[in-house]
Amino acid sequence: MHIDTDRATDWLRSAATAARAATSALARLPGETRDAALRAAARALRAASDEIVAANARDLAAFDAAGGTKAFRDRLALTPARVAAMAQGLDDIADLPDPLARVLAEWTRPNGLVMRRVAQPIGVIGMIYESRPNVGADAAGLCLKAGSAVILRGGSDSFHSARAIHAALIAGLASVGVPEAAVQIPPETDRAYVAAMLGAAGLIDMIIPRGGKSLVERVQREARVPVLAHAEGLCHTYVHAAAEPAMARRIVANAKMRRTGICGATETLLIDAAVAPALLPLIVADLRALGCDFRAGPRARAIVPDLPVAEPGTFDTEWLDSVLSVAVVDDVDHAIRHILAHGSEHTDAIITEDAAVAAHFMNGVDSAVAMWNASTQFCDGGEFGFGAEIGIATGRVHARGPVGLEQLTTFRYHVLGTGQTRP
Amino acid sequence: MHIDTDRATDWLRSAATAARAATSALARLPGETRDAALRAAARALRAASDEIVAANARDLAAFDAAGGTKAFRDRLALTPARVAAMAQGLDDIADLPDPLARVLAEWTRPNGLVMRRVAQPIGVIGMIYESRPNVGADAAGLCLKAGSAVILRGGSDSFHSARAIHAALIAGLASVGVPEAAVQIPPETDRAYVAAMLGAAGLIDMIIPRGGKSLVERVQREARVPVLAHAEGLCHTYVHAAAEPAMARRIVANAKMRRTGICGATETLLIDAAVAPALLPLIVADLRALGCDFRAGPRARAIVPDLPVAEPGTFDTEWLDSVLSVAVVDDVDHAIRHILAHGSEHTDAIITEDAAVAAHFMNGVDSAVAMWNASTQFCDGGEFGFGAEIGIATGRVHARGPVGLEQLTTFRYHVLGTGQTRP
Repeated sequence: MHIDTDRATDWLRSAATAARAATSALARLPGETRDAALRAAARALRAASDEIVAANARDLAAFDAAGGTKAFRDRLALTPARVAAMAQGLDDIADLPDPLARVLAEWTRPNGLVMRRVAQPIGVIGMIYESRPNVGADAAGLCLKAGSAVILRGGSDSFHSARAIHAALIAGLASVGVPEAAVQIPPETDRAYVAAMLGAAGLIDMIIPRGGKSLVERVQREARVPVLAHAEGLCHTYVHAAAEPAMARRIVANAKMRRTGICGATETLLIDAAVAPALLPLIVADLRALGCDFRAGPRARAIVPDLPVAEPGTFDTEWLDSVLSVAVVDDVDHAIRHILAHGSEHTDAIITEDAAVAAHFMNGVDSAVAMWNASTQFCDGGEFGFGAEIGIATGRVHARGPVGLEQLTTFRYHVLGTGQTRP
Repeated sequence: MHIDTDRATDWLRSAATAARAATSALARLPGETRDAALRAAARALRAASDEIVAANARDLAAFDAAGGTKAFRDRLALTPARVAAMAQGLDDIADLPDPLARVLAEWTRPNGLVMRRVAQPIGVIGMIYESRPNVGADAAGLCLKAGSAVILRGGSDSFHSARAIHAALIAGLASVGVPEAAVQIPPETDRAYVAAMLGAAGLIDMIIPRGGKSLVERVQREARVPVLAHAEGLCHTYVHAAAEPAMARRIVANAKMRRTGICGATETLLIDAAVAPALLPLIVADLRALGCDFRAGPRARAIVPDLPVAEPGTFDTEWLDSVLSVAVVDDVDHAIRHILAHGSEHTDAIITEDAAVAAHFMNGVDSAVAMWNASTQFCDGGEFGFGAEIGIATGRVHARGPVGLEQLTTFRYHVLGTGQTRP
């Protein structure tokens, strides 16, 4: 189906206008009311579990008829347990501290004016995501808690699931008097709605894409609205000459193999020439025992000759799989140069006992998260203590790294005077 | 002259790549070295004063030949005193605290990981500005201090002036070993360079436009890169029923008439019906004595009948002149609704002795800066204590309000471990 673009644009304009009014209302509600809305939405999800699973069955039937893959089917599928987990996620968000109840800074000017920087909602957020239907409920929960309205555009695959989830969410909101326009989804599944969202400068304040690299790159390329996203997580772990060998082995194994499909997984191992002859064979053996394959540069193959050869592009590849690129480097500056040339400004780690070298590395790389003696897999909102995250950002404007509630707010100033005029 | 687009795009790609390398170097320099570079650039500007004024004379001659207006000519003109002021501006920026030497937050996780949020340069900033040639030197100074490289694209009118200023700046940088690529200008004046900058996603991290509304709106509409800007400052002063009358008169006169051409000047007066009969005539008389004209709604004209009639669009007009739109409102919620409908999310003030009403107003409007009992003309980086500002932002992502050094930085995380792996 391809609808005409005007229909999508018209819908978006009216949806965003209603969302703008809803965010004004949300921002003025006390935190307890926003939390009550989240808990009511959680109850409504639990109550609608059967309807949601039935709607999901329609999506799954269409998916099977189109001959989709098993991995994607698993992401798309909802069970009563998964619906319960979605509801629990909303209750967990309700338990977090109110990100709007924060004075970020306050100072007094010589003329007596008190300048206060206070947290404020972003406003209207557009969420564009792929098959996992639970992303919609999580995103709605985080945006509501942070006082923003959200327009959710899930994948076509999950359209019926998304509608059923949305119906439950807004029933919950309505039950405590929060405007339903705080969470909206397009009325049909055409791509024209994505285009309308991407072009909605002045109507949508921020777009957050969640999904594969091609989705994120399309959004980054086409959006006329600020985008909070990461397209790639090409993370490095660098084993410095002064690394504690047992720690290096433990961290590299975890950073690569704990989960290979997440953006914080290490894709490339850099190891100093001084320690590679002794340490690299041990690291390779550890990882092979866990089922990992390799692509290695010439200096690494000189040490472990049976490593598969790195090809052109190897060090620019985000494997998201049980594969590790390996290069031997001369020293920390060589490692920094490699990361600046091949990295994605996501997460990069150094393993060393030398604090000065660690500081040099962390200042030298350009990553949203630089780590010292820890696994790159810690790049996660939960592990940072944010309670929940809506994604990871690698842009340089606004938030970087895991995006939790705090990063879903912006700020403004309150200036408190006693009649001051400007000379 | 219209050149082909490829030439501008090619230049920009190579300039931005050099700028990226320069920002890596800048970010690693100690603050004292960046300050030394600013002072060296200031000395170089003073030393090149004659050349700069001579280059400016070429721009002025072309401007006069094209029959430009007197107001624009004054903005364009450089004198030895103006060059000295530019140099002093750089010395003043050097005196400010280092915005990169800041740990923004630090906390420790239960597993012992120390999470540290630290300030970091934005990276490569594109500055697009109109006729005032001094904007280039100011912007270069602020960006350098904040560790970012900058590509300066001034107006065609000031091309020779901008080149002469640029030559002096980079001579200063070079004299202390800072890469010249930290400050660059296009080699010619074609508009294709603006288009190349606006399209430079991934090469330029942020665009800052400074100039008239049409320039800013064009940049906001066409940029594929995050933009920090305000297109309009349609500021309101709201006189609440519980205002102290003498204070209200003093503040309104200052907010409107201190300087009418700046974005923080009040454009619309809202006044409560309860106090308008007594107070509005006095305010009108004050402002008339200062040379102000009016456009008034029917309820205001019922009180002061000789006020000129507000026309359709009056309350959406940023006068930037000695004209004030006037409306009588019922109460604070009416004032908030008016501001949400007609304001530009820049700066809005309430005058009242009632703290609860003031808080309600400041939370209800959506402005980057909300003020209580103070003149809207205080919306200025210097008045906020930022030392210097590169502009005012009304977007909702990244900085809002006056943009000083702190707002020209972003952040990243340093995660300090002792060998932690993720379970």
